[in-house]
Amino acid sequence: MHVLNQIATVRQKKRCLAPLAAGDVRSCFGMTEPHPGAGSDPAALRTTAVRADGGWIIDGHKRFTSGAVGAGFCVVMARTPAVDGSPEGATMFLVDMTNPGIRVGEAIHTVDRSIDGGHPHVHLEDCFVADDAVLGEVGLGFRYAQVRLGPARLTHCMRWLGLARRAHDIALDRAARRELFGGPIDSLGLAQHLIAESVIDIETSDAIITKTAALLHSDPKAGSAMSSVAKVHCSEAVFRVVDRAVQICGGDGVCDGLPLAQYLNEVRPFRIYDGSNETHRWAIARRASAGRSAAVQAGERYRGDAVVGRNGGS
Amino acid sequence: MHVLNQIATVRQKKRCLAPLAAGDVRSCFGMTEPHPGAGSDPAALRTTAVRADGGWIIDGHKRFTSGAVGAGFCVVMARTPAVDGSPEGATMFLVDMTNPGIRVGEAIHTVDRSIDGGHPHVHLEDCFVADDAVLGEVGLGFRYAQVRLGPARLTHCMRWLGLARRAHDIALDRAARRELFGGPIDSLGLAQHLIAESVIDIETSDAIITKTAALLHSDPKAGSAMSSVAKVHCSEAVFRVVDRAVQICGGDGVCDGLPLAQYLNEVRPFRIYDGSNETHRWAIARRASAGRSAAVQAGERYRGDAVVGRNGGS
Amino acid sequence: MHVLNQIATVRQKKRCLAPLAAGDVRSCFGMTEPHPGAGSDPAALRTTAVRADGGWIIDGHKRFTSGAVGAGFCVVMARTPAVDGSPEGATMFLVDMTNPGIRVGEAIHTVDRSIDGGHPHVHLEDCFVADDAVLGEVGLGFRYAQVRLGPARLTHCMRWLGLARRAHDIALDRAARRELFGGPIDSLGLAQHLIAESVIDIETSDAIITKTAALLHSDPKAGSAMSSVAKVHCSEAVFRVVDRAVQICGGDGVCDGLPLAQYLNEVRPFRIYDGSNETHRWAIARRASAGRSAAVQAGERYRGDAVVGRNGGS
Amino acid sequence: MHVLNQIATVRQKKRCLAPLAAGDVRSCFGMTEPHPGAGSDPAALRTTAVRADGGWIIDGHKRFTSGAVGAGFCVVMARTPAVDGSPEGATMFLVDMTNPGIRVGEAIHTVDRSIDGGHPHVHLEDCFVADDAVLGEVGLGFRYAQVRLGPARLTHCMRWLGLARRAHDIALDRAARRELFGGPIDSLGLAQHLIAESVIDIETSDAIITKTAALLHSDPKAGSAMSSVAKVHCSEAVFRVVDRAVQICGGDGVCDGLPLAQYLNEVRPFRIYDGSNETHRWAIARRASAGRSAAVQAGERYRGDAVVGRNGGS
Repeated sequence: MHVLNQIATVRQKKRCLAPLAAGDVRSCFGMTEPHPGAGSDPAALRTTAVRADGGWIIDGHKRFTSGAVGAGFCVVMARTPAVDGSPEGATMFLVDMTNPGIRVGEAIHTVDRSIDGGHPHVHLEDCFVADDAVLGEVGLGFRYAQVRLGPARLTHCMRWLGLARRAHDIALDRAARRELFGGPIDSLGLAQHLIAESVIDIETSDAIITKTAALLHSDPKAGSAMSSVAKVHCSEAVFRVVDRAVQICGGDGVCDGLPLAQYLNEVRPFRIYDGSNETHRWAIARRASAGRSAAVQAGERYRGDAVVGRNGGS
Repeated sequence: MHVLNQIATVRQKKRCLAPLAAGDVRSCFGMTEPHPGAGSDPAALRTTAVRADGGWIIDGHKRFTSGAVGAGFCVVMARTPAVDGSPEGATMFLVDMTNPGIRVGEAIHTVDRSIDGGHPHVHLEDCFVADDAVLGEVGLGFRYAQVRLGPARLTHCMRWLGLARRAHDIALDRAARRELFGGPIDSLGLAQHLIAESVIDIETSDAIITKTAALLHSDPKAGSAMSSVAKVHCSEAVFRVVDRAVQICGGDGVCDGLPLAQYLNEVRPFRIYDGSNETHRWAIARRASAGRSAAVQAGERYRGDAVVGRNGGS
Repeated sequence: MHVLNQIATVRQKKRCLAPLAAGDVRSCFGMTEPHPGAGSDPAALRTTAVRADGGWIIDGHKRFTSGAVGAGFCVVMARTPAVDGSPEGATMFLVDMTNPGIRVGEAIHTVDRSIDGGHPHVHLEDCFVADDAVLGEVGLGFRYAQVRLGPARLTHCMRWLGLARRAHDIALDRAARRELFGGPIDSLGLAQHLIAESVIDIETSDAIITKTAALLHSDPKAGSAMSSVAKVHCSEAVFRVVDRAVQICGGDGVCDGLPLAQYLNEVRPFRIYDGSNETHRWAIARRASAGRSAAVQAGERYRGDAVVGRNGGS
Repeated sequence: MHVLNQIATVRQKKRCLAPLAAGDVRSCFGMTEPHPGAGSDPAALRTTAVRADGGWIIDGHKRFTSGAVGAGFCVVMARTPAVDGSPEGATMFLVDMTNPGIRVGEAIHTVDRSIDGGHPHVHLEDCFVADDAVLGEVGLGFRYAQVRLGPARLTHCMRWLGLARRAHDIALDRAARRELFGGPIDSLGLAQHLIAESVIDIETSDAIITKTAALLHSDPKAGSAMSSVAKVHCSEAVFRVVDRAVQICGGDGVCDGLPLAQYLNEVRPFRIYDGSNETHRWAIARRASAGRSAAVQAGERYRGDAVVGRNGGS
């Protein structure tokens, strides 16, 4: 939705963004592909679009297309050749799900259940779209994807932090009521340790989300870099919080009388989706090294502008 | 099985242990109760047995009775009064599952699926058993339970370590085949970090199991204390190993094409079952403090006999 | 300085705060006492002040009086009886270091070196101070101490985060220049892991400091509670950052050619000073439990106001 | 000492090993060099030895030559050309410290103090040694170093585990005596958490040392691989144990009234010396991947022979 607002034409916005914002349709984003196609490494993109009369023909195979079942349209990322002065690269296309060339394939059963529309395969075969299906400019798809990813990551951080808070509350309620060794569990030091650790995880997650959101607004490039930090920290912190909630609730924590065990399954993939945490750590380290080198060459010593790699920063 | 071998009479062994060892029947162990009954705190035991003509009448409610569906008999722990010179305390009874006074209740749906017979509720109502159903001596049930727990915990450590090894192998296979950024994943430093951490977890778990097994044989009391250390370390280490295997496999790790996501659900309860890790940590700390105090009073300085709390030790 | 600004009289401010703010004198705070006096538990305060003609006579023994050597005055916390309508409790006194009743005792040699004036013992013997030495009101010393502690903790978080940033920069510089296995260290995955972890620690510390500072301004009570979270997180995060910087620099990291090994000694006590992290965790857990109970009683379900224990909060 | 016993000639043993074993002299090992020479990467070795009449002439610069001050002789690793049928490679030389061509240079001040003889630079200039100074065979120095490293690492694990046990005992003694909130510290849950974690670290370290020692005896190659696991686990575990001991002792933990703060400085370098833990993790991961590939090619599925990379194993 964010990327449509940034780069769609007035007509595209009217056709797609308006019903999306009104909640009338859902969209999906066709980026990830089966091995050896594009996963965490966009350079491996295998879906292609070639010029056809008055439009483009797209062929390819996507998977983990979250929300595809029942979606109104799909934003498809495809490799495009250098044409009409545009660079070779990737391009985003708006594809109606009613287009006969697009087909939702088999579902991928993952441990999480809370995404409407699942994470199915999507097949594009000889899929013709008209010129006005191009989102933004031909060849700039990767750049737009970057614009999209920072806010998208932060949205996930917020959602899962909400789940973590709920899990923490469930655990606090249980710890206040359940007795062990003659007192409520929340008076026992080892449970207090778990509770305190979860509070720290929740509050630091909340704080890095706020910091990243402000930065995305004031300096989108720095904000996008910081969103990697937020994604890694929050995805691991919320998993720990839910895991501790399970532990505090004991046997009840792993039964279906409480939702906590299923919560664990819901939050686990967040460390993998939207770029695995290892890929983000690699990007964070590279930016830190590059940023420090630039600062040193600019004559600076030990300023500690850790993430952003520029003069501005935290 | 271990406790039967230690304390059952010849007749009981013939009736119960022999078919168990032959694999003809399964048994279950009725210890844990719904709140506020016995969970990690055996002193809260609410199931009772009272003297009746030629036997005992047992009443109570158990849950998490792992393996009860389809079991041939259940070892039921019940509170018994001081009778015939026996102390007030708990007693173990062998109850045939065909006894009309015992009934398997509703299943408890937990995240793990791999225990035959589930973890159901078991209800005992006016359940008559003859005198020869008493396992060992009246009033010594808690002592026998301690005998049982050390080896039982170690069995679980071994089983789940096996699962962790398998998860690790699956991840290694995937990491060898899957390419990212132009090379196999297992050549990337951040994946190597995960792999190395898992090897360390696997090998230290293997080592503490071996150490505990030797100690259970040579000095059962010290071995039982050490089994708390093994249980806490292994239950957390195997979870980390499976969790890293999921992470290494990326999107595939959370799909049902691989068993890893379900493995996570299988191993999660191990940190709770058989005494939660927090209860074991509390016991470990108390033994360490008591053992050190005893050593100091015996004139010793800084010997570091950390767990066992006696002159013997590691 | 903060507490003086809040509660000192005009005359006291002129006498003490003005030269302090101008940098002409240093002050120290006499709170901590030798066992079994006041450490993390203020209720154990043993230093006393009793009424004397026109003032008070203070007797007691303080230690860890950071900055006492060379200080111009000391804010001494002493137990006071119920007098003149004031409650029994603790009172803060401004004591000139030239007062013959106060004496700086032996130094306590700690691993950190960066505090001007060290952490010595301070002895108060028959120390007379006039009535105008009372800071704020008699009997409210503990309340004032709370006012002081939130901002004081945050100041320490900021200072040590600065040191952590510098350590991280030193490590990045070294990693860019030093070669191993044919490339610079910062291109090796296992070093990148360390770098990324440190960036995450630095940025989350920065974020929780900002969050706490805003809260201390808008809602001092909630801010004081949040300062416990910030103190625990930052004190552990900065230690990890410095520790990783040592590791990245290898043999040089533990030599005196680089300051990193001494940095480790500087930041280690921060997990102990200003209330040990264990005491703060205990307080965090208790506030979380109490806050949740209050929210439940107010009819709320699963809101997740984790720290503050009130309707306000994050 | 171990490598001398394995490869020295009878005469060399008489001259060097006998007085070493008797405690009459100390030795040192000249391997590590300043950048860009040999550190964790032996292939970068810069010290050279060339044939001279009746012997060799060695030139080079070593550092971190632990124990060099006051040592009787130094085992020097030097690069040697292919001569007399020997392969090009590295060779070990026994150099008397009285040899005019060897000179102990400036000390390297490191945070640890407990190594007699420090970690100084050692300079070799035109240093002539006779043929009988060659240890083992020319060109096999790296192979001998591998033989030496496994047992050497394990010796360090044992030594530092001893220090960790002592630190843990000091903390237990303090926790038993010091009161907080009306009871001894060792009755507080958050201290119990620290104590239990340290027991687990101590016992798993002890167990992996035992496992590795047995393997070094029965299967030196597998034992050498396992010694990487032991080194990483123990060096991190003992640091955590000492760090927790500091924390349990509070303010006293960072004062020189107790040795704990200095212990931290003693154990910190162990994560760096003898191959940094990152280098070992990299080696562990590579062996795990290679071992698994070999097992798969041999038709095996999911056996989990994690470290060793052969059919034998744990």
